[in-house]
Amino acid sequence: MRLSRHFLPVSRETPADAQIVSHQLMLRAGLIRQTAAGIYAWLPAGHRVLRKIEQIVREEQDRAGAIELLMPTVQSADLWRESGRYDAYGPEMLRFKDRHEREMLYGPTAEEVITAIFRDSARSYRDLPRTLYNIQWKFRDEVRPRFGVMRGREFLMKDAYSFDLDEAGARHSYNRMFVAYLRTYARMGLSAIPMQADTGPIGGDLSHEFIVLAPTGESEVFYHRNWEQLRSLDVDADDPAALQAFVSGLTADYAATDEKRDPAREAAAGDALRQSRGIEVGHIFFFGTKYSAAMGMTVQGPDGSAITPQMGSYGIGVSRLMGAIIEANHDANGIIWPESVAPYQVALINLRADDAACAAAADEIYAKLMAAGKDTLYDDRDERGGAKFATADLLGLPWQLVIGPKGLASGVVEMKNRRTGEKAELSPESALARLIG
Amino acid sequence: MRLSRHFLPVSRETPADAQIVSHQLMLRAGLIRQTAAGIYAWLPAGHRVLRKIEQIVREEQDRAGAIELLMPTVQSADLWRESGRYDAYGPEMLRFKDRHEREMLYGPTAEEVITAIFRDSARSYRDLPRTLYNIQWKFRDEVRPRFGVMRGREFLMKDAYSFDLDEAGARHSYNRMFVAYLRTYARMGLSAIPMQADTGPIGGDLSHEFIVLAPTGESEVFYHRNWEQLRSLDVDADDPAALQAFVSGLTADYAATDEKRDPAREAAAGDALRQSRGIEVGHIFFFGTKYSAAMGMTVQGPDGSAITPQMGSYGIGVSRLMGAIIEANHDANGIIWPESVAPYQVALINLRADDAACAAAADEIYAKLMAAGKDTLYDDRDERGGAKFATADLLGLPWQLVIGPKGLASGVVEMKNRRTGEKAELSPESALARLIG
Repeated sequence: MRLSRHFLPVSRETPADAQIVSHQLMLRAGLIRQTAAGIYAWLPAGHRVLRKIEQIVREEQDRAGAIELLMPTVQSADLWRESGRYDAYGPEMLRFKDRHEREMLYGPTAEEVITAIFRDSARSYRDLPRTLYNIQWKFRDEVRPRFGVMRGREFLMKDAYSFDLDEAGARHSYNRMFVAYLRTYARMGLSAIPMQADTGPIGGDLSHEFIVLAPTGESEVFYHRNWEQLRSLDVDADDPAALQAFVSGLTADYAATDEKRDPAREAAAGDALRQSRGIEVGHIFFFGTKYSAAMGMTVQGPDGSAITPQMGSYGIGVSRLMGAIIEANHDANGIIWPESVAPYQVALINLRADDAACAAAADEIYAKLMAAGKDTLYDDRDERGGAKFATADLLGLPWQLVIGPKGLASGVVEMKNRRTGEKAELSPESALARLIG
Repeated sequence: MRLSRHFLPVSRETPADAQIVSHQLMLRAGLIRQTAAGIYAWLPAGHRVLRKIEQIVREEQDRAGAIELLMPTVQSADLWRESGRYDAYGPEMLRFKDRHEREMLYGPTAEEVITAIFRDSARSYRDLPRTLYNIQWKFRDEVRPRFGVMRGREFLMKDAYSFDLDEAGARHSYNRMFVAYLRTYARMGLSAIPMQADTGPIGGDLSHEFIVLAPTGESEVFYHRNWEQLRSLDVDADDPAALQAFVSGLTADYAATDEKRDPAREAAAGDALRQSRGIEVGHIFFFGTKYSAAMGMTVQGPDGSAITPQMGSYGIGVSRLMGAIIEANHDANGIIWPESVAPYQVALINLRADDAACAAAADEIYAKLMAAGKDTLYDDRDERGGAKFATADLLGLPWQLVIGPKGLASGVVEMKNRRTGEKAELSPESALARLIG
């Protein structure tokens, strides 16, 4: 993309109302713009990152055997009366009436809708197990929205729902998602710790939050220092026993949120106990027949008897993840994107747009990068070099390739790694070979 | 995807409340399920089609130079007061208050939001021209939702907005979208006629609806029979004069909706005048400074003077297109998907799931199709052949590949083209070669 034709409104000023660095950088780098309290538009560069995060989430859900569908944002209050949650859910649920005075709501989650869909379609034990997921906008009317997309009101969530014939099956479905979540975060360069957690308005007996450590996190968390090491995620998720052993092995190391602290386990951890703040980037629940029983969902078992499915639900805040990634990946000059979610891979900077030789060289390199399928943001604007460098650092693309008249005269371009700051002078051919691989 | 592990609830019965064939077939084929009046969940196969339609729309928008972003679904009433539309827009706008009693709405369109975003970011004539688009859920509270996704309340729309420095530029942006729309529909196997149309609540001087002819369409339309021929869309859209000549050439043939009939042009068409019903699948508008002036948006011109941008907006009903495609592509047995939007390319049918040789042969073919990136729905269920054929025809995948014990004994499988009904007995190798190409 040529910056001269793009829509990338960057700003040098730190917005006064943004308290945390991810919120500041997302505004400054032109990734988002607030359109109402806690509601954001995703500008082109931010939208590209959102889609990359979403695609990683999708691929790991598919790999875990979950099946994608899409539920609507507007739900009927009647469904929530069936589960008994309509009155129980607080003022965070955005409620309204349609023109015929029917009570509706903007879905904050979708246990009721998916249970109704599956109830009307699944007839036999052969229709189970299934895990269904969707990636859709949700709304929670936070009393005090803040921290940008980290605690916004309209947010993009991946929510999955598992249906099993018995509790052992449901545990396996839960464990599959447990591992899928860790794989998802790892692909974004995030290290997330699964912690025993409260089940809140979703309900149930077993729940883990996935927490990224960050000083700006909203939760106080406690964990064994073993969690600071990288874990292998190499396990056969199709083998229930192997998978259970793997999950049990991981959770043998203590980790809990403030609400779920266990004094005995903390004492056992001794010196190895760590305390930090953390950002929740996922939450999974096993709640048995809470919704299936309340909503009268059964399937016919092999012997003709009625089985009430065991369920779990599994959420990832897709839009919130962007904030968490930036909290964990930035420096004083701006964002440092992991390659897997960067809006573009390469910032191609022509230092002298008014110099015909520079423009010709940069145009040629741009054409070659694009032909090789390498997403490139080409700064072809008539601006000072300093402003171009600042924009590239702020936007945080993994690689910068700088074309200037001096270098060109001696046959070289400058290549900089945004994360390490390492610079090298290379021939254009060598630079291209390194980037295209 | 193995059907034994999929979620594809097909039904033999025609739903009593579905009046038109696309609505009936979408319910029967397990593409959608109604969750409230005029609100649908997209089941896995329907979701796949929706994403394919969306992707074609996206690619043609990108090709036309439009830049993707994403606006939220919930908007502030204040923005609509700036444009003066809040009171003018009727009861189709879903209005509500948040927990702090602020007036909000579920966006039926986004002229105000995009104008506010662009106003706050664009400063100079160098920031124009730009066309920005997004593909996002919209809500229009139809008094009588019907025809399934064709006139639903929550629907997926691509909406684009152009900003130009003068009217000539705005006309060029309009013409670019005009051609992009025709290319979009052509890629889905649809022939859509651009018709002069009313501007309705969007406003403006110039507007075209794109209409697919179908007896179940909601509008009465009139057109010159020349529109029944296929048109070449081969034009250089970067050349304003060539593009204008091309668009003028096309629109020289009369075509208008009921509200915009022109007796003189109809008389001139004489015998060549045709009358039909049609489905609107897109609507484009040029409205000059209607929103930019009302909302106080200006940029600084080269001479320092303030310029109020000329705007247009351009909508495609992405979810509605699925209904229109089915209206134009079905027979008594079910849907006949164009290859570009089919949920899967191949229905692989094992006639005897309990026969080891059949299962082994089908498994092998399935593995090869998937390895070649050919989306395949593999019917590996323990069901009668008749039921499997009926499901495949109903679901309408372009190709059916049938593995049975008799054929296998003589080294052949049967390959059927869903559209033509043509069948051939081939060796598995030849069948694979034809499908994979």
